[in-house]
Amino acid sequence: MVSQTVAAFVAAADARSLPPEVVHATKRSLLNFFATALEGTHDVAVETALETLRPFAGAGGATLIGRAERTDAMTAAFINAAAANVHDFDDTHLRTVIHPTAPVAPPLLALAEQRRVTGPEFINALALGIEFSCRIGNAVSPDHYARGWHITATCGVLGAALGVGKLLNLDADRLVFALGSASAQASGLVETLGFMAKSIGVGGAARGALLAGLLAEKNYDGPEAPLEGVRGFLNVTGEDPQLEEITGDLGTRWEVLRNIHKPYPCGIVINAVIDGCLELRQRSQVPVEEIASIKLSGHSLLSQRADRPDVPTGRESQVSAQHAAAVALIYGEAGLDQFTDAAVNDSRVRALARKVTLAVVPGVPVPDVRIDVTYNDGRTEEVLVKDARGTDNGPLSDAEIEAKFRNLAERAPDCTRTERLIETIWRLDEMENVGPLLRDATP
Amino acid sequence: MVSQTVAAFVAAADARSLPPEVVHATKRSLLNFFATALEGTHDVAVETALETLRPFAGAGGATLIGRAERTDAMTAAFINAAAANVHDFDDTHLRTVIHPTAPVAPPLLALAEQRRVTGPEFINALALGIEFSCRIGNAVSPDHYARGWHITATCGVLGAALGVGKLLNLDADRLVFALGSASAQASGLVETLGFMAKSIGVGGAARGALLAGLLAEKNYDGPEAPLEGVRGFLNVTGEDPQLEEITGDLGTRWEVLRNIHKPYPCGIVINAVIDGCLELRQRSQVPVEEIASIKLSGHSLLSQRADRPDVPTGRESQVSAQHAAAVALIYGEAGLDQFTDAAVNDSRVRALARKVTLAVVPGVPVPDVRIDVTYNDGRTEEVLVKDARGTDNGPLSDAEIEAKFRNLAERAPDCTRTERLIETIWRLDEMENVGPLLRDATP
Repeated sequence: MVSQTVAAFVAAADARSLPPEVVHATKRSLLNFFATALEGTHDVAVETALETLRPFAGAGGATLIGRAERTDAMTAAFINAAAANVHDFDDTHLRTVIHPTAPVAPPLLALAEQRRVTGPEFINALALGIEFSCRIGNAVSPDHYARGWHITATCGVLGAALGVGKLLNLDADRLVFALGSASAQASGLVETLGFMAKSIGVGGAARGALLAGLLAEKNYDGPEAPLEGVRGFLNVTGEDPQLEEITGDLGTRWEVLRNIHKPYPCGIVINAVIDGCLELRQRSQVPVEEIASIKLSGHSLLSQRADRPDVPTGRESQVSAQHAAAVALIYGEAGLDQFTDAAVNDSRVRALARKVTLAVVPGVPVPDVRIDVTYNDGRTEEVLVKDARGTDNGPLSDAEIEAKFRNLAERAPDCTRTERLIETIWRLDEMENVGPLLRDATP
Repeated sequence: MVSQTVAAFVAAADARSLPPEVVHATKRSLLNFFATALEGTHDVAVETALETLRPFAGAGGATLIGRAERTDAMTAAFINAAAANVHDFDDTHLRTVIHPTAPVAPPLLALAEQRRVTGPEFINALALGIEFSCRIGNAVSPDHYARGWHITATCGVLGAALGVGKLLNLDADRLVFALGSASAQASGLVETLGFMAKSIGVGGAARGALLAGLLAEKNYDGPEAPLEGVRGFLNVTGEDPQLEEITGDLGTRWEVLRNIHKPYPCGIVINAVIDGCLELRQRSQVPVEEIASIKLSGHSLLSQRADRPDVPTGRESQVSAQHAAAVALIYGEAGLDQFTDAAVNDSRVRALARKVTLAVVPGVPVPDVRIDVTYNDGRTEEVLVKDARGTDNGPLSDAEIEAKFRNLAERAPDCTRTERLIETIWRLDEMENVGPLLRDATP
């Protein structure tokens, strides 16, 4: 009865009863979404996908974030999702490593341009889409991702289909149909991560969700139990699905509250290292040339995932603790510019990175790290970081998300109305018509 | 190295070295494909999908089989695949239960309308697409389908992407990229069978393959081992993938030769029952009212899958041995008209179906059956069927496939050039330009 329970909850969910903290967290995710989409849309993986889809696209006037060009709603959903997620800098649900907003927001935005949607309706649908992407993800975690499913895409299409269905005011039966057509499109493999092909899975989830919702609106039928059926999504893609993760505490527990926003475009295990190195740089004005060695002591995951002393590319530098420590100390910044091929090839960065070693200290939590610096003259200095920024206990403030937005929006300099976009998103629950906000995300 | 080996084989495969029997078998599958697509396109599952996609479709002039309307190539690939497969009456690779041509032919046909493609090039690409759909299916069978993957769609997108890549003359590296983007889209659940949602998986496979090939043509990159990688398709969707099934005997073993064509729109286990009942009806002119009982003795699969005495709908009648026996004896036919709600509700059919019982006889092969009829006056009669039509050992003749084509094409009466389509397909290897043949599949 999981599918039916979910559908009944979504069908009944009233925008006015969404808790204020959920409304607020959803806005934060949406702001972060626009930030990463504005920046990501000019990545070659997104540009090429658009170039490939363009000859087949319809008219229809849906907005492509960061572009003057318009396209049909299906193509826009695909491209906007791919853009938001391409650098994995969008919101992250840490327990599942789902990036929930990238597949969910784009089909809702495309619909909001076609049909009049109020702010509260939009936030409600987005919150519900995020919620069930993450709850379905919780039910199959950690086996699903470990087996090789790119959970952002596979669970994303299901959550997003519910969000689309909510915007379309589908009843519970039709929401189950939407889940059915979404389940037939659930795909995405971890093997594709690090390659352009990843974006096809994520874009496809957004497009597939829009299709599933619109089909359901026309009574396109599907199985009674697309989620929990014997050969439904949960059993096929999970090893031991925990159904109560999906249906427990509906309306009282909200997964969007556990959504984090990355301050740095890196693997999250590195966050504490960057926090500490930035603090160290601010604290002592010692030139980095006088550093003899740096020791990072942390959770075993830090070593397992991020002990990469000599990375060859900007892409791989995003998961190198050595590189991250070096750029934070040298540049005093750890943004996208600090994780490029150019940054990797900066001889000062390379030299300092080589002085960094990692150590595992049992009992140190993932979001913490101890940094010990030894200078050439024998002097030592240490920093202790607790609850790194961008982790569950160190969430970015609204102002920090705004700063991240501005930093990324700078990379879309022809989009001149992005300040207004920030304001609009913060008061989205007062808007009578959401569609026009997309104009502020274009040149 | 499986992905690389496959890609190298496909890149090097020369149309002129395709064995004549493979060319012939591929034409048979294509003829059967057009037959089922001409009939299937007016199913509500296909009509509604087209209605839903239409507002987002581009121009581009790709043919929709059985329709005057044209659309973009991606949408055409989707709809034509859904139409060909919607009644499961398309070709079947028995070992895997893949319907291989439905996802493979449509993207190739759509491409052939855009770029000049010769007959031999087209047949080669189609044969290769079918080949690797089935070989990849063999490698993960039977676990993959048993777990709940709708193998026609999941393996179909991969084989079809290779076929598309071949038509695009991609080199081996780009064919691996095509497999990568296809693997990110591999989806489709057995749970959706029997519902419209099934068609979204199958249509999506065809569309996804076209997208994957076109992306690869633009150097859209993907993992080195999309098939055999640790988190690649085979390991994620299979339990114990047999890699040699994919790379063994390349160029000497051809799976299309094991492709069968259904004579009846039913589960294949029922074929022998229908064969026998049609024979019985021809042999003895006894009115069915004089039949007291009918006993069907066969393989356990017949009982497991098809012992359904009182089916409520035309759809379910397609897997009822009782219904099949009754219509064959009463109408002397077992075509689509005999598996409708109307046929199910025919009181003569219901009465006769109730007199049919099934028995399991150890040692009887799946394609065989023994039928014992007892009449009201105590007389008995029996029929022994060996190697039912439409099984590995009882393939339909070319004439029988033509007859099936004509029977199905009759359901598209406004398509008046379908006789010419038959002729064209039989001499497809002489054609200098394949694209125009699609005109003969439209009104």
